[in-house]
Amino acid sequence: MNTKAPAKTVDVVVVGAGLSGLAAARTLQKAGLDVHVIEAADRVGGRVRSANVAGAHLDLGGTFVGPTQDRIIALSEEVGVKRFATYVEGGNLMHWGGTRRSYRGTIPSIGPIALVDAGRIQSALDKLSRSVPPGRPWDAPNAQELDAQSLGSWMRAHRATASTYEIFAIASRATWGCEPDELSLLHALHYIAMAGGLDLLLDTKNGAQEEHFVEGTHEIAARVAAELGEGRVHLSQPALSIDQTGDVALVRTPDLEFLARRVVIAVPVWMRQRIKVTPSLGPDAVALGQRWPGGVLSKAYAVYDRPFWRDFGLSGQAVSDRGPAVITFDASPEDGSVGVLLGFIGGKQARMWDSLPEDERRLRALNGFAELFGEQARHPRGYLDQRWVTEEWVGGGPCAAPAPGHVLPYAKTLIEPQHLIHWAGTETADQWSGFMDGAVRAGERAAAEVIAAVSNASITDKN
Amino acid sequence: MNTKAPAKTVDVVVVGAGLSGLAAARTLQKAGLDVHVIEAADRVGGRVRSANVAGAHLDLGGTFVGPTQDRIIALSEEVGVKRFATYVEGGNLMHWGGTRRSYRGTIPSIGPIALVDAGRIQSALDKLSRSVPPGRPWDAPNAQELDAQSLGSWMRAHRATASTYEIFAIASRATWGCEPDELSLLHALHYIAMAGGLDLLLDTKNGAQEEHFVEGTHEIAARVAAELGEGRVHLSQPALSIDQTGDVALVRTPDLEFLARRVVIAVPVWMRQRIKVTPSLGPDAVALGQRWPGGVLSKAYAVYDRPFWRDFGLSGQAVSDRGPAVITFDASPEDGSVGVLLGFIGGKQARMWDSLPEDERRLRALNGFAELFGEQARHPRGYLDQRWVTEEWVGGGPCAAPAPGHVLPYAKTLIEPQHLIHWAGTETADQWSGFMDGAVRAGERAAAEVIAAVSNASITDKN
Repeated sequence: MNTKAPAKTVDVVVVGAGLSGLAAARTLQKAGLDVHVIEAADRVGGRVRSANVAGAHLDLGGTFVGPTQDRIIALSEEVGVKRFATYVEGGNLMHWGGTRRSYRGTIPSIGPIALVDAGRIQSALDKLSRSVPPGRPWDAPNAQELDAQSLGSWMRAHRATASTYEIFAIASRATWGCEPDELSLLHALHYIAMAGGLDLLLDTKNGAQEEHFVEGTHEIAARVAAELGEGRVHLSQPALSIDQTGDVALVRTPDLEFLARRVVIAVPVWMRQRIKVTPSLGPDAVALGQRWPGGVLSKAYAVYDRPFWRDFGLSGQAVSDRGPAVITFDASPEDGSVGVLLGFIGGKQARMWDSLPEDERRLRALNGFAELFGEQARHPRGYLDQRWVTEEWVGGGPCAAPAPGHVLPYAKTLIEPQHLIHWAGTETADQWSGFMDGAVRAGERAAAEVIAAVSNASITDKN
Repeated sequence: MNTKAPAKTVDVVVVGAGLSGLAAARTLQKAGLDVHVIEAADRVGGRVRSANVAGAHLDLGGTFVGPTQDRIIALSEEVGVKRFATYVEGGNLMHWGGTRRSYRGTIPSIGPIALVDAGRIQSALDKLSRSVPPGRPWDAPNAQELDAQSLGSWMRAHRATASTYEIFAIASRATWGCEPDELSLLHALHYIAMAGGLDLLLDTKNGAQEEHFVEGTHEIAARVAAELGEGRVHLSQPALSIDQTGDVALVRTPDLEFLARRVVIAVPVWMRQRIKVTPSLGPDAVALGQRWPGGVLSKAYAVYDRPFWRDFGLSGQAVSDRGPAVITFDASPEDGSVGVLLGFIGGKQARMWDSLPEDERRLRALNGFAELFGEQARHPRGYLDQRWVTEEWVGGGPCAAPAPGHVLPYAKTLIEPQHLIHWAGTETADQWSGFMDGAVRAGERAAAEVIAAVSNASITDKN
């Protein structure tokens, strides 16, 4: 281990083999550059990961795709991973104030008056989100005032009813892995704007949950990594340091050293500070690394002999104010050969549930499923959960949840190259940030920056 | 470098040679334990650091002490570092809304009506802070409601005038290195409670700025380190990993390995995640490491032939709504042999100013001093500034500035031992957290935990 090979000279090192880093590497390689990817974990994928349980394929991280998520769709098609529609037939369920009810659509049927109020808040959020230009939150009118508030304080100021507040708290937990009081309103609005509106963000049919992948999302990452070629992706090699001298960066891992013309860092914002960079990052970049924490969002999967809820005319989609899973989906394979329920556990519920031992987590998750779908749900033939906070080289998810006051001063810094370093990762996207689509877009944007910089350098060299 | 000595077996490894780690090590050693301290930087002191410029001693980090800060006072006296009163004779200055005025006391004379409003907000904050038990913010009535708000949103809800808001924004910048909108109200109240009230926190005479140290604060750290003995403090040795197996922790640095019965981690909360720990920290501890960022607070010092402002009946103490320094003090040596002005630059002003090149920072800082104290202030015989965000192994200061929603879920986790690991650092204190006194208290508390744990283990061994 201590006898390293001499440093390898390459065009670009990409740090992080998540979808964003892999998309960057693919784009760079197609442009004719010599690219190597280093990954801290012992697998590729980052925030996409898969497992097989009791005959079912499970997406433990990024799962769904929907309309306008063109880049992840294009990439998946290029590597031949197929999609199918999320099951939406039948009624959705809600468990609310101790009662179970059935409803249709995205917003639960909490009674006509409550529904009007939820609609009012949704319209107001949507309208306000249209004032935030995707990729340029600092250009929003009143950006400072919007960043000074949390999503929660904004809802209180707009006199959301308790039911409305709870509905949007559930959306906040499942979307950002946090409570509304933890999140900058400017970030929430910008995120909605980058998704094209709340309907697109939250809906299943015609929204971000419309389809999932036959072979699973991890297969996209695996195939992109394979296409990069033998010896291009180095696993279990965390970037320890990046030393920039003139126009060369020395990138060190426990076992490898590279001399690169450019570096793309494609790790979650909150993991950036793990890499020692010289000359040191500017003050805003240092402060940013401490200020955009990962959300707290976990997933619980139960696999059954059949999707039994369909027999009762139910879609498998549900909302619960009790949890631990606050939102569920039918994540069965296309042929329905087994039944798969997926529950999202986020924010305060996840903080409680994540710390429990595995059998207790399982008991509580299945208890929540049974409250929604009946006693049968207590007896799956397989169960698996994924707590993203405990995933060593990810440490949270699905995306950053910046607090009030932490967006406006740092949003530009998020994507600003630092000498030879360019930034990828879904947080740096200007469309569908927080999603797999944003990850791919951000990787492709960072690659384009590098290609432009390297071409300019080559032209200068020739003069 | 790659040929390490075999792991050394010790009782305790302390990570971090700031005041907190050193106080812990001193207490442990006095209890008869075999203690080693590893420090990432090439100096001891952490958030206390000193420099000599043009014949003046400058405290670049922690500087002042005041009444009830008994532990730092006791420690400084034990190692023979002396104190003297901060100069407070004459009028204080303010530069407000484009005009310069003189006033007495802590709250600037912004006119009688404005003063009444500022007094009203101060009383309300003080009263509310008394509902938060020091060291147990989770026991405050309405803790969740308090944590859901920012200091800024609370001031707006209480209809603070623009002047009042700005006064407390300046206090926020100088105290926590952040804007009021970034800070959890619960944290602000708890911090005030841990200091014993706003007067104690903000005042010079009879408050936390009452005295400073003749030989400087860094000398306290240096002497404590020296007293630990030859070979006890290992500089330039960042903790890379802590692997806990049974009742032994293996602590690794680039050049050293220790096998310890217990480990005290005495680094800022936001630096905790740089250390790889196995078994991994619990989910809340991981999330906490991403959620308590360091403040952004810098200092600018100008050294003059004499403290010339005293000739005009001025104390050197000032408040400015223009900045970059929002608060200044006379930090001259006791004999007044040279004149030293100290300016605090925090929050939004620091974010702007920290990124400037050194000559521009100097120009702007001196311009601010000149607006307050006249043209003479433009021509010091020496100048030095310290941007704590750029200090590699500190990365911010003076203390953590947790956002809304990030205190209640994580305050217990902050000090909860994780198997063989105990936590020190001023953020973990229950009195004067954020100050040198809190650092010492936290170190002594962590040491007491270790001593108790180790004695229990010894008793168990004998049975």
